[in-house]
Amino acid sequence: MVKEGGHGSFQGKDYVDPPPAPLIDAAELIEWSFYRALIAEFVATLLFLYITVSTIIGYKSQTKSSTDPCAGVGILGIAWAFGGMIFVLVYCTAGISGGHINPAVTFGLLLARKVSLIRAVAYTVAQCLGAICGVGLVKAIQKTQYNENGGGTNGLEDGYSTGTGLGAEIIGTFVLVYTVFSATDPKRNARDSHVPVLAPLPIGFAVFVVHLSTIPITGTGINPARSIGAAVIYNNKEAWDHHWIFWVGPMVGAAIAAFYHALILRAGAAKALGSFRSQIQVV
Amino acid sequence: MVKEGGHGSFQGKDYVDPPPAPLIDAAELIEWSFYRALIAEFVATLLFLYITVSTIIGYKSQTKSSTDPCAGVGILGIAWAFGGMIFVLVYCTAGISGGHINPAVTFGLLLARKVSLIRAVAYTVAQCLGAICGVGLVKAIQKTQYNENGGGTNGLEDGYSTGTGLGAEIIGTFVLVYTVFSATDPKRNARDSHVPVLAPLPIGFAVFVVHLSTIPITGTGINPARSIGAAVIYNNKEAWDHHWIFWVGPMVGAAIAAFYHALILRAGAAKALGSFRSQIQVV
Amino acid sequence: MVKEGGHGSFQGKDYVDPPPAPLIDAAELIEWSFYRALIAEFVATLLFLYITVSTIIGYKSQTKSSTDPCAGVGILGIAWAFGGMIFVLVYCTAGISGGHINPAVTFGLLLARKVSLIRAVAYTVAQCLGAICGVGLVKAIQKTQYNENGGGTNGLEDGYSTGTGLGAEIIGTFVLVYTVFSATDPKRNARDSHVPVLAPLPIGFAVFVVHLSTIPITGTGINPARSIGAAVIYNNKEAWDHHWIFWVGPMVGAAIAAFYHALILRAGAAKALGSFRSQIQVV
Amino acid sequence: MVKEGGHGSFQGKDYVDPPPAPLIDAAELIEWSFYRALIAEFVATLLFLYITVSTIIGYKSQTKSSTDPCAGVGILGIAWAFGGMIFVLVYCTAGISGGHINPAVTFGLLLARKVSLIRAVAYTVAQCLGAICGVGLVKAIQKTQYNENGGGTNGLEDGYSTGTGLGAEIIGTFVLVYTVFSATDPKRNARDSHVPVLAPLPIGFAVFVVHLSTIPITGTGINPARSIGAAVIYNNKEAWDHHWIFWVGPMVGAAIAAFYHALILRAGAAKALGSFRSQIQVV
Repeated sequence: MVKEGGHGSFQGKDYVDPPPAPLIDAAELIEWSFYRALIAEFVATLLFLYITVSTIIGYKSQTKSSTDPCAGVGILGIAWAFGGMIFVLVYCTAGISGGHINPAVTFGLLLARKVSLIRAVAYTVAQCLGAICGVGLVKAIQKTQYNENGGGTNGLEDGYSTGTGLGAEIIGTFVLVYTVFSATDPKRNARDSHVPVLAPLPIGFAVFVVHLSTIPITGTGINPARSIGAAVIYNNKEAWDHHWIFWVGPMVGAAIAAFYHALILRAGAAKALGSFRSQIQVV
Repeated sequence: MVKEGGHGSFQGKDYVDPPPAPLIDAAELIEWSFYRALIAEFVATLLFLYITVSTIIGYKSQTKSSTDPCAGVGILGIAWAFGGMIFVLVYCTAGISGGHINPAVTFGLLLARKVSLIRAVAYTVAQCLGAICGVGLVKAIQKTQYNENGGGTNGLEDGYSTGTGLGAEIIGTFVLVYTVFSATDPKRNARDSHVPVLAPLPIGFAVFVVHLSTIPITGTGINPARSIGAAVIYNNKEAWDHHWIFWVGPMVGAAIAAFYHALILRAGAAKALGSFRSQIQVV
Repeated sequence: MVKEGGHGSFQGKDYVDPPPAPLIDAAELIEWSFYRALIAEFVATLLFLYITVSTIIGYKSQTKSSTDPCAGVGILGIAWAFGGMIFVLVYCTAGISGGHINPAVTFGLLLARKVSLIRAVAYTVAQCLGAICGVGLVKAIQKTQYNENGGGTNGLEDGYSTGTGLGAEIIGTFVLVYTVFSATDPKRNARDSHVPVLAPLPIGFAVFVVHLSTIPITGTGINPARSIGAAVIYNNKEAWDHHWIFWVGPMVGAAIAAFYHALILRAGAAKALGSFRSQIQVV
Repeated sequence: MVKEGGHGSFQGKDYVDPPPAPLIDAAELIEWSFYRALIAEFVATLLFLYITVSTIIGYKSQTKSSTDPCAGVGILGIAWAFGGMIFVLVYCTAGISGGHINPAVTFGLLLARKVSLIRAVAYTVAQCLGAICGVGLVKAIQKTQYNENGGGTNGLEDGYSTGTGLGAEIIGTFVLVYTVFSATDPKRNARDSHVPVLAPLPIGFAVFVVHLSTIPITGTGINPARSIGAAVIYNNKEAWDHHWIFWVGPMVGAAIAAFYHALILRAGAAKALGSFRSQIQVV
């Protein structure tokens, strides 16, 4: 059952790393699958924002109109909405577009040369448009509640500085993109018989736990499409004031995760040093 | 391990699409498996309604009788009851009946020609009867609490219009049926080694997250059997007033999901255009 | 990859049903694996009761001592403790003892002839002793809190009759044992390529959702060992008054599930009628 | 598909137990994979503490500053943060370092001779340093909130004695390490076709449920790195007063789990007695 790598250069390799994606791959532009992937990213991000922002609005609306402070899904329910939707949507779109649904994930995979530059840019545009339409849909069907409850925008909560928000976004996105890299590593299947690759579930859980820790600070972005979708539709000064945090933070976090994975975990650094006995002996 | 499709017409196809189900399949009427599937759908929908409506009644009852506003499972617990039961029941009945437990899912699969018309009608009847019996069981064993706490019916919450409710039901059912199509696509197994097909879990999570976002609006139907079961047993004017929403909304949402899957994701549109290089190169 | 059944009597059978377990299997009494299974059931039920009763006591204790009504894991957290522990423990002991951890599950499997009578009796004794020791452990290490907060016993909550409690226990145990049968059916692996058999997770979720709906009524037994463990250690009149409900209810529920599975789902009824074309054509 | 064990001594063995790890394995010190594993343990424990302590601080901060006592993720959300992160991180690091992220797990695996002494010591140091840096990161980016809300330290809650705390830590760690042993047992794959090995999920759930039951008592350690990380950074008298409990308890619990697994479940005791017919007949 051992499949030798195409290059045959390292002994003991029982998996195949796909070659790096080219930066510009003109061939993919004439394929239906490319446009289908864009549509899938657009629709998935639309659904992601619709469900999550609608959950936020519903929670705030129920809590406000009731004398019962527990009359809603709670912050915990909001965190589940984000994590649960990512699980479902990554599961649904993984085979069509790779299931990014997040420009930071796309950026991380671009740095790792898993997608071409042209695909990365197109995905990011599709994700942002999808997010805007998703939040627009929430506003369209429940305008009063949407306007009265803050529109689901990201921002700095009272008592937190710009640095805190930026740091929280960087680390949160690192957790997410690190999980994405671990889950989609072609080495996994071959190496770990006791860690079956059920990628979408841990990715969803990563989003969930990051929300648990980061909602009190920034409301949790870790996804520039999510942040810009809410900001464009709500469109007040506050939503735009710190908007840069929700692009810079996630992109930096994704980049660190990409380098951590490439240099440390996939042993890019060690390859250069030539010590490669390990793979099999690791517990 | 590559199984060629029976038709042999497209190169690179490593999976077999079953032929479309006939509209009227008289042969299945003489098979025990057909009636077994109906019984399984009936029992599963009965259990689904029993557990979920009982959770709603118990929550409202505990919150009311206590000075502690948090003395219950909360809206979050209700959402888990719906999502968790669908996970469990789809898991249990998938091999017997396909695990629909929802006329909207059956309708979507009928449009996709995965089930015959006759099976779709029979399933829908079995599901509605099961739902009525399930809610009836709740009423039978805890009549006082059932009558005092609204009977678990769907309807428009204060402050939401008919359009809002209809929109929320359409999108919510779209999320569910889209997940069902993605999870049961015969292409999955062949194509995505890193997305193992653990269908019932994402389907359950889809139901869970849709409830998080839609409970404040309509209580969440996305399943006409669930709505009619509660309406028949509670049977007050309010329960019937907007009942049509919980048939039209889910059916429209399921239809959109079926067309989205057929025309975009399974590339029905592109097949006509003849560009079919893609399958393997998709990340 | 099609393995023919040993008996070779039905065509199209691609799985092997193990022969029914004998009622008295003296041979197993001289095997270490039999006693190991008893120890595993004892330890698992001990841990199950320790964690769950400790969660109940901790929740009641925190809520009481605080001005904040939300200062605890909530009823939802209690339901997760029961469901989560069953998931973990079934996962851990499935390969050693079959992972029953519940006399009602053992009884259901006895009726289905999956375990011998002697094993069923021994398991039940081990489970009850384990449960008593588990609750004893909670009392041993936190006596004050244990005595002040009701000891985690099952009983009828205010406003519910004996019939309600019995009905709720029957249906709740039916949901659990039906899931156990579905999850361990030897037919599954062969038939359903899209329903991978991750048995412990849906079993845990079944316990979780049944708790969501049944905690307001009886506190949720659906496991006679759990109920007797709490009753023996707390040992007040109230705990014993309705104790019979928590044996009769679960045993009746398990029996119905066993018959439903044998007669309907495994087509025991239809076999007699000889119509057996179905297996493969079911969607 | 039956792989005979290398030793060939017991019939019916269809799996291979790796030989015990040497106490001192000088060879691993010159391999990149050893240092990569240390880095992975360091980073994983850092992320674990960052997310979980940040969740605790955010919860306390939101609850305090709001008139709404439910304005936070709740104790349930905190338990999810711990369990969810362990699921994600074990999933991510299992193939690199074995995914310990906890000196008690490392100690249990050392006793079972799964890792060398030198690796165990190095892992423990990496985990403790990672934990300190993780909590340090929380303090660095949200100093005010961190200092005002107790720093996420472990300790004895009001009304619980040293013995209670120690007992709770021992049992809680036993549950965790027992799950780890069950999940990584090389016998599993061979023996249980109906219990697929999705190790990280039950391990995460074990951490989650132990937190549900133990947060009211000690805040839940069951991981000496987690406890020392919080104590070093918060560094007040209270955090150090009972700190020994969070080393002695977990280490004792892990040792009991290791012996339970080796002597009972893996039948070390029975091997000596020579009765080995069992493996296959167990249900």
